[in-house]
Amino acid sequence: MATENKPYVVGIDLGGTNTAFGIVDARGNVLASDSIKTKLYNDDLDKYIEEIHKGLLKLIENNCGIERIKGIGVGAPNANYYTGNIEYAPNLPWKGIIPFAKLLSDKFGVPVALTNDANAAAIGEMTYGAARGMKDFIMITLGTGVGSGVVANGQLIYGHDGFAGELGHVIVRRNGRLCGCGNKGCLETYTSATGVARTAREFLENRANEDSLLRKMPIDQITSKDVFDAAKAGDKLAKDVFEFTGETLGEAFADFVKFSSPEAFILFGGLAKSGDMLLNPIKKAMEENLMPIFKNKVKVLFSEMKDADAAILGASALAWEAK
Amino acid sequence: MATENKPYVVGIDLGGTNTAFGIVDARGNVLASDSIKTKLYNDDLDKYIEEIHKGLLKLIENNCGIERIKGIGVGAPNANYYTGNIEYAPNLPWKGIIPFAKLLSDKFGVPVALTNDANAAAIGEMTYGAARGMKDFIMITLGTGVGSGVVANGQLIYGHDGFAGELGHVIVRRNGRLCGCGNKGCLETYTSATGVARTAREFLENRANEDSLLRKMPIDQITSKDVFDAAKAGDKLAKDVFEFTGETLGEAFADFVKFSSPEAFILFGGLAKSGDMLLNPIKKAMEENLMPIFKNKVKVLFSEMKDADAAILGASALAWEAK
Repeated sequence: MATENKPYVVGIDLGGTNTAFGIVDARGNVLASDSIKTKLYNDDLDKYIEEIHKGLLKLIENNCGIERIKGIGVGAPNANYYTGNIEYAPNLPWKGIIPFAKLLSDKFGVPVALTNDANAAAIGEMTYGAARGMKDFIMITLGTGVGSGVVANGQLIYGHDGFAGELGHVIVRRNGRLCGCGNKGCLETYTSATGVARTAREFLENRANEDSLLRKMPIDQITSKDVFDAAKAGDKLAKDVFEFTGETLGEAFADFVKFSSPEAFILFGGLAKSGDMLLNPIKKAMEENLMPIFKNKVKVLFSEMKDADAAILGASALAWEAK
Repeated sequence: MATENKPYVVGIDLGGTNTAFGIVDARGNVLASDSIKTKLYNDDLDKYIEEIHKGLLKLIENNCGIERIKGIGVGAPNANYYTGNIEYAPNLPWKGIIPFAKLLSDKFGVPVALTNDANAAAIGEMTYGAARGMKDFIMITLGTGVGSGVVANGQLIYGHDGFAGELGHVIVRRNGRLCGCGNKGCLETYTSATGVARTAREFLENRANEDSLLRKMPIDQITSKDVFDAAKAGDKLAKDVFEFTGETLGEAFADFVKFSSPEAFILFGGLAKSGDMLLNPIKKAMEENLMPIFKNKVKVLFSEMKDADAAILGASALAWEAK
């Protein structure tokens, strides 16, 4: 398949549940990919690295050979771009500081670059997706949590310590909902998939006399998908949940504009599939909270990356600059 | 004085009341400076430009000659770095869009660069002040308003439209105090010099039975300096005003850290002279609102620029790169 002299990179998306990896060419085509279950290696980091090595080597040998691989890019929670370490990631099985880039580069003999998953998504979007040609944009990932990657002057902002871009933990309601990070009122407690479910439960409790399709299921098992389906079916309460979620995001976006004045916000992740139901209240609330000089300038777009490949592509884009 | 072949730049600080300008060498020495009253030229922009030209030419001829001037840097409200225009500045006498850089470069025949005053201060601090050697920091100016300049990866963030860094208008209290920008609850309504006076009036009204040195003056004439003096003299209510101001700033700083993870915040402007009275509650509130990975890392420093020269120096630093 890849018999010419073209260079390739590897992208690895390290999540708490799965680790996906693949080989990518310079045009953003994923030649081959595979995955392993992160959770199977809870007590054995060495074994986990060994499995990735085995899995990747198979793909590499079947496709291009290791001599064509220019680098490996990794998207992982709490990953530090400067040190190549994963530091105290609450959702990963291995505790403390893990020299992940070094472990991999020792194994493969190629340069490895590491950053958090949302930053990787931002680089992916800039290289292959909706942010092509943009020098200033903010990537917002709406999944189990809320992640972000901030690009300004054409560069990802890593901050002095490599941990910049934690916009999911900006406090949007002082003394609001308790967050996993220890603080209260973080954006992600309201606008992640879990946040949406939490809002639905709150609304169901506070509006006890109002009928809703969501009352047909046990309240503690409601997911954001259930809320979406109910809203699609015209359920008032469920629609209000999305209205509230979008409004909260839009208010936060307006504050982010005052920081880096991006050309666009790019939404990625499960919740981003909600379409106009989320987009309309976001835009409305954002515009209402902007000063005149910023009004009607900032786009809110959905990611153009294919779901299955997005995480691998994003991580791989980082690999081209790995040293 | 400047008989050798050294290059010089001009810094202009355009404020609503005064316009200060001066000649600066590469080491940040202000050779000579002067100022004119902006307000005298309310209805005549051409006359104003003419006066600046006259004033500056005198300084230039007495010091180095126009052939040694490499560029002119201007710090001005609502100044757009990309276009060189001042756009709809509410505190300036001239309305609409003013092609300020062009007006000046046509007059002087040298390149002119323009940015807002807080951005100019940030560049000054990075070139000559407390941020020397830093690649990631946030400048916060605490004056009549609250301004900011964000530096990341060693570069000032201008945003896609040239207006990034309006952190004074980040909303810190949803539906809070009405701001001049039209929104409610902006940071500057609480933590500018005017915000401090506003807080003092609120506290005096809400704590009607409590004695305070501030009750000796007409409530609508209280300034932040009065509050500072009273707090210094041990006045409980005045001390609480600074505690509240610092706390509000610290909470906001914690959110800013989640954005660009700066090495330091650098405080500049009248209120920054309040020392520990402001610094201690800032640091406390900031640390309390940070996630573990950010704790005990971020410095809060005072500007190291001399007051009289700071604005001119900041603007002049921009001139070295003017094209």
